[in-house]
Amino acid sequence: MSNTTHERTPQLRADGSLRHLLTLDGLPVPMLERILERAQHFVREIGSAPARSDALRNVTVAALFSEPSTRTRLSFELAARRLGADVASVEVQLSSRLKGESMLDTVRTLESLHVDVLVLRDAEDQVPDLIARDVEPHVSVLSGGAGSYSHPSQGLLDALTIRQHKGDFAPLSIAIVGDIRHSRVARSAWHALRALGVRDLRVAAPAALMPSDYLFEGCQRFDNIDDAIRDCDVVMMLRIQTERMTQASIPDGERFFTEWGLTPARLRLAKPDAIVMHPQPMNRGVEIASEVADGPQSVIRHQVRNGVAVRMALLEMVVGGRP
Amino acid sequence: MSNTTHERTPQLRADGSLRHLLTLDGLPVPMLERILERAQHFVREIGSAPARSDALRNVTVAALFSEPSTRTRLSFELAARRLGADVASVEVQLSSRLKGESMLDTVRTLESLHVDVLVLRDAEDQVPDLIARDVEPHVSVLSGGAGSYSHPSQGLLDALTIRQHKGDFAPLSIAIVGDIRHSRVARSAWHALRALGVRDLRVAAPAALMPSDYLFEGCQRFDNIDDAIRDCDVVMMLRIQTERMTQASIPDGERFFTEWGLTPARLRLAKPDAIVMHPQPMNRGVEIASEVADGPQSVIRHQVRNGVAVRMALLEMVVGGRP
Amino acid sequence: MSNTTHERTPQLRADGSLRHLLTLDGLPVPMLERILERAQHFVREIGSAPARSDALRNVTVAALFSEPSTRTRLSFELAARRLGADVASVEVQLSSRLKGESMLDTVRTLESLHVDVLVLRDAEDQVPDLIARDVEPHVSVLSGGAGSYSHPSQGLLDALTIRQHKGDFAPLSIAIVGDIRHSRVARSAWHALRALGVRDLRVAAPAALMPSDYLFEGCQRFDNIDDAIRDCDVVMMLRIQTERMTQASIPDGERFFTEWGLTPARLRLAKPDAIVMHPQPMNRGVEIASEVADGPQSVIRHQVRNGVAVRMALLEMVVGGRP
Repeated sequence: MSNTTHERTPQLRADGSLRHLLTLDGLPVPMLERILERAQHFVREIGSAPARSDALRNVTVAALFSEPSTRTRLSFELAARRLGADVASVEVQLSSRLKGESMLDTVRTLESLHVDVLVLRDAEDQVPDLIARDVEPHVSVLSGGAGSYSHPSQGLLDALTIRQHKGDFAPLSIAIVGDIRHSRVARSAWHALRALGVRDLRVAAPAALMPSDYLFEGCQRFDNIDDAIRDCDVVMMLRIQTERMTQASIPDGERFFTEWGLTPARLRLAKPDAIVMHPQPMNRGVEIASEVADGPQSVIRHQVRNGVAVRMALLEMVVGGRP
Repeated sequence: MSNTTHERTPQLRADGSLRHLLTLDGLPVPMLERILERAQHFVREIGSAPARSDALRNVTVAALFSEPSTRTRLSFELAARRLGADVASVEVQLSSRLKGESMLDTVRTLESLHVDVLVLRDAEDQVPDLIARDVEPHVSVLSGGAGSYSHPSQGLLDALTIRQHKGDFAPLSIAIVGDIRHSRVARSAWHALRALGVRDLRVAAPAALMPSDYLFEGCQRFDNIDDAIRDCDVVMMLRIQTERMTQASIPDGERFFTEWGLTPARLRLAKPDAIVMHPQPMNRGVEIASEVADGPQSVIRHQVRNGVAVRMALLEMVVGGRP
Repeated sequence: MSNTTHERTPQLRADGSLRHLLTLDGLPVPMLERILERAQHFVREIGSAPARSDALRNVTVAALFSEPSTRTRLSFELAARRLGADVASVEVQLSSRLKGESMLDTVRTLESLHVDVLVLRDAEDQVPDLIARDVEPHVSVLSGGAGSYSHPSQGLLDALTIRQHKGDFAPLSIAIVGDIRHSRVARSAWHALRALGVRDLRVAAPAALMPSDYLFEGCQRFDNIDDAIRDCDVVMMLRIQTERMTQASIPDGERFFTEWGLTPARLRLAKPDAIVMHPQPMNRGVEIASEVADGPQSVIRHQVRNGVAVRMALLEMVVGGRP
């Protein structure tokens, strides 16, 4: 299931409203901005009551997650509940069901059960896209993360977090550091931030974790963290799968931290008011020092909070725009 | 736990209202018809909003499933939620807990937690029945499928689907094809359709998958699909467990499809307006061709939709009839 | 993570209201009594409709259970739902995540998702306590059972059950029998009953299952069940983990029942109106005879029913007292 074997499923309806969210790649900038604006409307301070509405009253949302993801699943579920939806959650290996087309049978079943929105996470890149192209007109598909291909709601919450702290995107210098090659988070951030006009976008990774040349167009590539984050406004750290370190070319645990970890000393290379982001879960002491993760420049908790707001906006928009 | 070691648990209350649903075997025809009628009331077109009511407000429904069953579990859960119930879902191996009678302790616990309706699925034939005989007067038990013994809500949704497309039952010719021996779906369909007056009911299976002689009374038996479906109004295909094909006497994969699969060519043996049914999950290319499953004569999606309606009717009736 | 390496997290707010419930050890008696009183308010007869309110409307409760526990999880979930809360349930191995501090990251995430109450069960003694000390002011933590250290809501429901049947605590003779050493149930009962003034509190266990000397202060210790339950008002039986019986010093299955099982004959050693309790799940025929578990002196089902009431009281109190 490569990215290129088929035409992409349209994400907008004929009237320009949002139907699906599968990738940020190619999403028109005005739509991107409308989502961020609507999401901002749902943001509340941590520690205060969350936003609520009954925009999804009588709407059924099914979350199908084939990978364990407490964070993203809970975020979507709570977003749907706080809008008044009925929520059904299923743990199901969609991609492993591809044989005999039974994945599509599952989708047909959900449609016949009057499910309105499918939230899908899968280890395969194209699963949400394949399903979206096949659902009936009244059903919307929201990707909850697909392979290393895309994680669009994460890209949106990252963009929202940056805008809350830094305002205009154009003049910012933003570095994404870590396992760029396998990261759907990096890909979706790249799509969002390029579209929103960030001119100085940088990616930094050990050679083995650097993506193919045709990806991350318009980004400057760095083979070390120090040069990458120098004078940046935003430092986005990625999770390194420790399993990957067994590869000869990637330094392991402690050595990775020495070479690639974001320490307080290193962070001083960035602008004094730079913000630090991480999609979680974090390997503290591997890609990021605890002092940084919990320090005054960290906006990691804002990312989580903004995630619920982004998902509320997405749910409201795909449902509200139905013909 | 054989079928014959005990008297069956009564399914009706003294006043004739529905208390439990464990099997369609012996359920009075007027009750069968009342359920179908009430279910029809909850049917909505696929693509439109589902029926809702608050008939189960303040009612607690617990779903205890010991076998994975996304479809049936979701169908019951959504039915209960759309009637306003509180729904708690537990994955629990009831039959494996039989030692030390702890299955009944689990039931006692649920009663003490003020659960009103238990929806139970188990691999053992008699588990829902055993539990139903033991619950307190205010609690109802609905079987979500038990061993190869019964799957009464499936039998009802099958009957409802047939009635929607064919009207009167008496003059119909209906063939059930596949692994009749191990299929609770076939059993419950047999009970429902016999009771509703179908005169020409046929079962077809390879010899190794044909049930004992004392079962499927009143059905004509066929050892090949072609004769079985000839001039039929309804063709019900069953899922074949591919594990079973290792038995010497059952053809495997491709050969099974050649000998037993419902292809477009074969379907032309049935009446031109015959409908095709399947309880799912389907093995496409094994017991049914995709062209048939997705073709104009297929009513498989209607079955799923009707399933929610039947379960809403059952929940409403067992709760509404409480003394 | 021993009990003594850190100061305990305060459970009350500065204004004396209940913030967390982690242990009954040291909980002021007036608070204990307030909880029991409020719980009594939520008690309903088994077979009648459960108590409901909307005290937790717009409140989000997350249940994080690292051990399978149908009973306690359902009890908390139903308690929260019947108070109108949004409930999210996650199965997560908190203690195994301790490496890299990611347990606290999970907590930070839940806070950022606007979760108000965390219900936690873990195999490690100190997990709820560690988390409680670290949550933000608006978040409360309720222990759903932690290692062999504490199970405070169980201790409360046990106390409530005793009070319902026996009134004043002071003059009672109460025996706790079985695997005292590993039982958080025994510990929490001991804390509650001592605090409530029970003067004659007894523990009985095989030598290998007797706790260290510094625990169960004020309790008389017995090495046999007969002497322990003689003339008692309350007999609390504990579950014996059959895995433990492989230890040389503990009699196995049938022998355990002969030496330690509560039989009808043995129960006659207690007062004629003695009540019998068990936290469940029961090993019938091992620590307790079925005739006793289901007999007229058993209040085991009342314990379950009271569990929901206690959890409703706790949820209402920690949320209601927020500044």
